[in-house]
Amino acid sequence: MSQIGVIMGSDSDYKVMEESVKVLREFELDFDVKISSAHRTLERTVDWVKAFEAQGGKLIIAAAGLAAHLPGVVAGATTLPVIGVPLSSGAMEGIDALYSIVQMPPGIPVATVGIGAARNAALLAVQFLAVEDKPLSIKVKNYRAQMMKDIEEKDEALQKRLSQG
Amino acid sequence: MSQIGVIMGSDSDYKVMEESVKVLREFELDFDVKISSAHRTLERTVDWVKAFEAQGGKLIIAAAGLAAHLPGVVAGATTLPVIGVPLSSGAMEGIDALYSIVQMPPGIPVATVGIGAARNAALLAVQFLAVEDKPLSIKVKNYRAQMMKDIEEKDEALQKRLSQG
Amino acid sequence: MSQIGVIMGSDSDYKVMEESVKVLREFELDFDVKISSAHRTLERTVDWVKAFEAQGGKLIIAAAGLAAHLPGVVAGATTLPVIGVPLSSGAMEGIDALYSIVQMPPGIPVATVGIGAARNAALLAVQFLAVEDKPLSIKVKNYRAQMMKDIEEKDEALQKRLSQG
Amino acid sequence: MSQIGVIMGSDSDYKVMEESVKVLREFELDFDVKISSAHRTLERTVDWVKAFEAQGGKLIIAAAGLAAHLPGVVAGATTLPVIGVPLSSGAMEGIDALYSIVQMPPGIPVATVGIGAARNAALLAVQFLAVEDKPLSIKVKNYRAQMMKDIEEKDEALQKRLSQG
Amino acid sequence: MSQIGVIMGSDSDYKVMEESVKVLREFELDFDVKISSAHRTLERTVDWVKAFEAQGGKLIIAAAGLAAHLPGVVAGATTLPVIGVPLSSGAMEGIDALYSIVQMPPGIPVATVGIGAARNAALLAVQFLAVEDKPLSIKVKNYRAQMMKDIEEKDEALQKRLSQG
Amino acid sequence: MSQIGVIMGSDSDYKVMEESVKVLREFELDFDVKISSAHRTLERTVDWVKAFEAQGGKLIIAAAGLAAHLPGVVAGATTLPVIGVPLSSGAMEGIDALYSIVQMPPGIPVATVGIGAARNAALLAVQFLAVEDKPLSIKVKNYRAQMMKDIEEKDEALQKRLSQG
Amino acid sequence: MSQIGVIMGSDSDYKVMEESVKVLREFELDFDVKISSAHRTLERTVDWVKAFEAQGGKLIIAAAGLAAHLPGVVAGATTLPVIGVPLSSGAMEGIDALYSIVQMPPGIPVATVGIGAARNAALLAVQFLAVEDKPLSIKVKNYRAQMMKDIEEKDEALQKRLSQG
Amino acid sequence: MSQIGVIMGSDSDYKVMEESVKVLREFELDFDVKISSAHRTLERTVDWVKAFEAQGGKLIIAAAGLAAHLPGVVAGATTLPVIGVPLSSGAMEGIDALYSIVQMPPGIPVATVGIGAARNAALLAVQFLAVEDKPLSIKVKNYRAQMMKDIEEKDEALQKRLSQG
Repeated sequence: MSQIGVIMGSDSDYKVMEESVKVLREFELDFDVKISSAHRTLERTVDWVKAFEAQGGKLIIAAAGLAAHLPGVVAGATTLPVIGVPLSSGAMEGIDALYSIVQMPPGIPVATVGIGAARNAALLAVQFLAVEDKPLSIKVKNYRAQMMKDIEEKDEALQKRLSQG
Repeated sequence: MSQIGVIMGSDSDYKVMEESVKVLREFELDFDVKISSAHRTLERTVDWVKAFEAQGGKLIIAAAGLAAHLPGVVAGATTLPVIGVPLSSGAMEGIDALYSIVQMPPGIPVATVGIGAARNAALLAVQFLAVEDKPLSIKVKNYRAQMMKDIEEKDEALQKRLSQG
Repeated sequence: MSQIGVIMGSDSDYKVMEESVKVLREFELDFDVKISSAHRTLERTVDWVKAFEAQGGKLIIAAAGLAAHLPGVVAGATTLPVIGVPLSSGAMEGIDALYSIVQMPPGIPVATVGIGAARNAALLAVQFLAVEDKPLSIKVKNYRAQMMKDIEEKDEALQKRLSQG
Repeated sequence: MSQIGVIMGSDSDYKVMEESVKVLREFELDFDVKISSAHRTLERTVDWVKAFEAQGGKLIIAAAGLAAHLPGVVAGATTLPVIGVPLSSGAMEGIDALYSIVQMPPGIPVATVGIGAARNAALLAVQFLAVEDKPLSIKVKNYRAQMMKDIEEKDEALQKRLSQG
Repeated sequence: MSQIGVIMGSDSDYKVMEESVKVLREFELDFDVKISSAHRTLERTVDWVKAFEAQGGKLIIAAAGLAAHLPGVVAGATTLPVIGVPLSSGAMEGIDALYSIVQMPPGIPVATVGIGAARNAALLAVQFLAVEDKPLSIKVKNYRAQMMKDIEEKDEALQKRLSQG
Repeated sequence: MSQIGVIMGSDSDYKVMEESVKVLREFELDFDVKISSAHRTLERTVDWVKAFEAQGGKLIIAAAGLAAHLPGVVAGATTLPVIGVPLSSGAMEGIDALYSIVQMPPGIPVATVGIGAARNAALLAVQFLAVEDKPLSIKVKNYRAQMMKDIEEKDEALQKRLSQG
Repeated sequence: MSQIGVIMGSDSDYKVMEESVKVLREFELDFDVKISSAHRTLERTVDWVKAFEAQGGKLIIAAAGLAAHLPGVVAGATTLPVIGVPLSSGAMEGIDALYSIVQMPPGIPVATVGIGAARNAALLAVQFLAVEDKPLSIKVKNYRAQMMKDIEEKDEALQKRLSQG
Repeated sequence: MSQIGVIMGSDSDYKVMEESVKVLREFELDFDVKISSAHRTLERTVDWVKAFEAQGGKLIIAAAGLAAHLPGVVAGATTLPVIGVPLSSGAMEGIDALYSIVQMPPGIPVATVGIGAARNAALLAVQFLAVEDKPLSIKVKNYRAQMMKDIEEKDEALQKRLSQG
C-alpha cells in the first residue's frame, strides 16, 4: 500500500521531482510515482487517481510546468489533499505554472509550493502524515534539528574563515 | 445540430460570454452553451465535449478565470479546435487565466484570445467556419466592411467636432 | 481541544478570513482564531504556535498581506503543516504576499492557496484531516457532490433562460 | 494550391518555426512559408496575404518576436483565421510578443498559442482543417493516440527504473 | 499645411489624446487629428500617413491600447519620426500597449512615452520641432520656466500651510 | 559642431551603445560620446548637457541600466529632445530601466526605445534630423529600401532551401 | 535646525507623505518639508539638499511616483542617507516607482520602503536617529510596545466577538 | 564591539554578501557576520539580534533570497535600523525576495536596497554611521570623490579610443 502518490506530466519532469522521491525514501514512506498527463492522457490520469485513493493512498504530489493543469485536474478527481509543484519550463520560467496551480477556483484547493520546490512538496506531505503518526513526527522533528545543526556548522565554518582573515 | 459549443466554468462567467452568444446569433450560427467545471464536474465536462463532437459539433469556445484549466481540459478531451477565453477575476485580473490557457504543453494547443475577449472568440470561430462556407465568408467580409465604415464615420464626427472648435 | 488554528497578522484580515471560519463551522471542526503579527508580536506568535501544537492542534492556517511573513514564521516554529493565505492589500494587490508565502526556502514548506482564497484554505485543512477521519471524509465527498449539483442547477437555469430567448 | 501559410518577420525566426513545418509535413499538408515584415515590408506582406487567400489558402500561421505586430497585421488584411506564435527574443523573453499578439482589439482576433509554440500552432491549424476533412481528422486522432502511447511507454520505463532502485 | 499628425485607433481614445491636442494648440502648431485603425482600416491608415507626409507633415503621434500596433504600423509606412502613446485599456491597464509599442524590432523605431502620457507626447513633438525653430524653442523654454514657477508656488503654499499648523 | 550627443552612465554601457555610434557613422553625422552618471557626477552631467546644447547640439541619446535616471535627468536639464535607451543589467534584465525611463512625469518627456535598442535610438535620431535635412532624408529612405531588399533576399534564400527539401 | 528633510516632486504627493509628517511630529523631531522636482527644478532640488545638509540635516526622506528619480537624484547630491518612498500613480500603481528607486546603481544607495509607505519611511528615519539618541530610542521602544498592545487588544476583541457567536 | 551586523540565511549567500564585508573593511568599521535562518533557526536568529543590540550594535544588514523573511524578522526583533538585501535565487531571480523585503507592513520598516546590492547595503550603513561620525563622513565624501574620478578617467579613456578611430 502506498500512502503518497507522485504524479507528473512528462518523464522530463522527473529530474526535478527526484528530489521528492529522495525525501520520501529518507522518511521510509511508501509511495507511487506516475507519469500521466492532464491533457494527453486525461482518463488514464483520473483512473490512476481513483485507483490510488482506493488502495489506501492518503495524499498526492502533482507536478507540472507551463499551463500546469495536472495538480488541479487531480484535485478535481479526488478529495485527497493534493500538493502542487510548479515546474520551471520555457520562457516564463515557472511563473505560468505557479499561477496555473495556485490560483485554483473556490471549492477545489491545491496546496502549492514554490517553483521547482520538489523537496518542500515531499516535506509537506511528510508533515501532513506525521500529524497522526507519532514515530514519523519524531523523525520530522529530528530532520528539523539536523537542519538547525547544519546552519550552526556552516556559521561556525564562516566565522573561522573570517577570523583567519 | 450545433456547430459551435460555448462552455464556461461558472454561471457568473456568462455576463462576459454573452458577447460571444450575441456574435454567434448575429451570424445565425447554431450553438450550444454549457456551464460545466474542469474541476468540480470533470467527468460531466468530458461527457459533454464528447457528445458535442458526436452530434456534429465543429469547434468549442471555452472560457475560465483564475487557474483557468477548462479550455485545456476540453482540448485534451477532443481533437476539435478549442478557442480559449481568459476571464478577469480576482487579484490578478486575468493574467493568471491568460497564462493558464495560452501556455499549453506541446501536443494540445488552445487558440487563445485576449483577456475577456468573448466577442473576438466568437469572431474567430466564425472565421474558421467561414473557410469552408462561402455564404458565411461573405457575411464575415461584410462585417469587416461595416467595422471600417464605423471607423470612418467616427473619424468624420471627430473632424466635424474639431473644426467647430 | 482545537484541531485547526487560524492566525492572521491584523484584525482587518478577518473580513477575508471569516470565509475560512464559515467553512470550518460548516464541517463542525474545532478551531482557534488568533490575531498576532510576525513582526510586531513575534514572540507572542511563536508562543501561540507552540501552545496550539501542545494542546493537540493538527494544522495551522496563516494569512497575511504585503510582505507576508506570518505563514513562513509559523512554519518555522512548528512541524505541523501550515497552510498560507496571501491577502490582497496595497498597490500590488496580493502578488507580493503570494511570492512572500509560496517561495519558501528548502526545508520549511508552506502549503499556499490562491490570493484571498480563505475558503479554499479551510477546505484544504478539512481534506487533510479527512484522510484519517472517515466521517469527515464522507462530509467532504458530500460537499463536493453539492458543488456538482450547484453547477448542474445553474446550467439548467441558463439553458432555460437561453431557450426562452 | 497551399492550404496553410506560414509567415514570419525574419529568417532568424525560422529556427523555431521549422517545428511548424515539420508538423505540416508529417500531416502531408500543402503550405507556403514566407519571410516578410509587418514594418519593413508592410505592403509586400499585405500583398502576400491577399495572394495566399486568392489562390485558395485557408489559414495563416504568423510568428514574430518583440513588439510582435505581424500576426495582427496579417489578421487585419484577411478574413482567414490567423494563428499567432509569440517568439522569445531579447530581454523580455517573449512576454512582450505574447501581449502584442493575444491582446488584439475587438473585431480582429488572432488565435494565439504559447511562447515559441511553433509545433502547437501547426497542430491547431491541422485540427481546424480536420473539421471538414475526415481523413485528416483520423490522422489527428492517430497522432493523439501516439502521444498517449508515448506517455505510457515513458511511464513504464520510469517504473522499471524505479523498481530496479 | 499640418506639421504634426495625431492618429489613434478608436474615437474612445480621444478622451485621453485631447491632452495632446491642447498642448499643440497652446504652442500654436498646425496639426491633423485622425481616427484610423492598424487592423480594421490598414490601407486607409497607410494612405493617410503617406498623404500627411506628402503635404509636408513632419512628425506623427500615434496612440493605441491593448495590442497597440498602430504606432509601429505608422512607423513602417513612413520615415518621419513617430511618437507612440500606449493607452490604458482592459485588464492589463496599458502594460500590453507599452510592450507592443516600445519593443519595436531593429530598423523601425517608435519614440515611446509613458502609459497615457498624451501631454508628454505632444511636448516631445514640440521639442523636436523647436530644434530648427527658434521662436518655438523660446516658447518651450518659457513653458519649462512656468513649470518651475508652478512648483515653487505650490511649495510656498505648502510651507505656509505647514507653518500655520 | 556635434548635432547628436550620446551619453551613458558607465563605460560598460558602451559595448551596447556602440551600435548607436555605428549607425551615426553610417549616416555621416557629427556626434559626441560621453560617459557621465546621473548620480555619481550629476553636476558634470548637467554641465555637459548645457555645453552640448550651447555649441549647437540638436538631440541627445541617453542610455542607462537598473534605476535608469540618466535620460530623465538629461531631459530635465535641456529642452532638446532626449532619446532614452533602457539597458539590460542585473536580475530584472532591463524591465527596471524601461520603467525608469518611459514613465516620466508630465512636462518632461523622454523618447524611449526598446530594451538594449541602441541601433533604433540612433535611427530615431537620424529620422528626426532628416525632417529638416533633405539629403539625410534620402539616405534614410535608402536605408529603409535596403532593409526591404534584405528581407526579400532572405525570403528567396529560404524558398530555395525549402524547395530543395 | 532640522534633522530630517522630507522632499517630494509634487504637492499632490503630500496627501500620502502627510503620514510621514504625522510620525515625525509624534516623535517631536524637527523636520523640513519641500516640494521640488528632479526634472522640472533640478538645480533648486540640489541647492535645497546642500542647504539642508549644511544647516545640520541628518537624513532625507524623498518620495516620488512614476519614473521616480527624485530619491536617486537627492542621493547623488549628498552623502547623507536617503530614504526613498515609491508612490502609487498611474497605470502601474507604483511598481514603476519602486523599480526606479530601489534598483540604484552601485555606489549611490537609496533606503527604499514599500509602495506608499510614508509612515514606515518616517519610522525608519526615527530608528536611525535613535541609534545615537537614547531618549528617542526609548520613545521608539515605547511605540513598538504600543503596537504590540494594539494587536493584543484587537485579538481580545475578536476572541470576544467569536465567543459570542 | 561591533557596530554593524551582517546576517544571512545560508552560507551560499556569502558569495554575494562578501561585497558588503569588503566595503565595511575598506571603511575600517567593526562588524559581525552571522549565518542564521528566519525559519530553520528562528530563536537563534532572535537571540543573536538581541545580543548584537546589547553589546552596542547600531545597525543590521540582513540578506535573503526567495521568500526572504530574514530582514523582516530581524526588524521585528529589534528597534535598530535594518537594511535588507534581496538576493537573486531560483526562477524569479530575486523579484520574490524584493517584494518579500520591501513591502513590510506599517510599523516595522526595512531599508531595502536593489537585488543583489550587497555593496550598496554596506555603503548605506556607512552613510548612516557617518551622520554622527565626522572622520567617517570625510571618508564617505572621499569615496564619492573617487567614484567621480573613476568616471572621468573612463570617459577620457573612451574619448581617446574614439578619437583614434
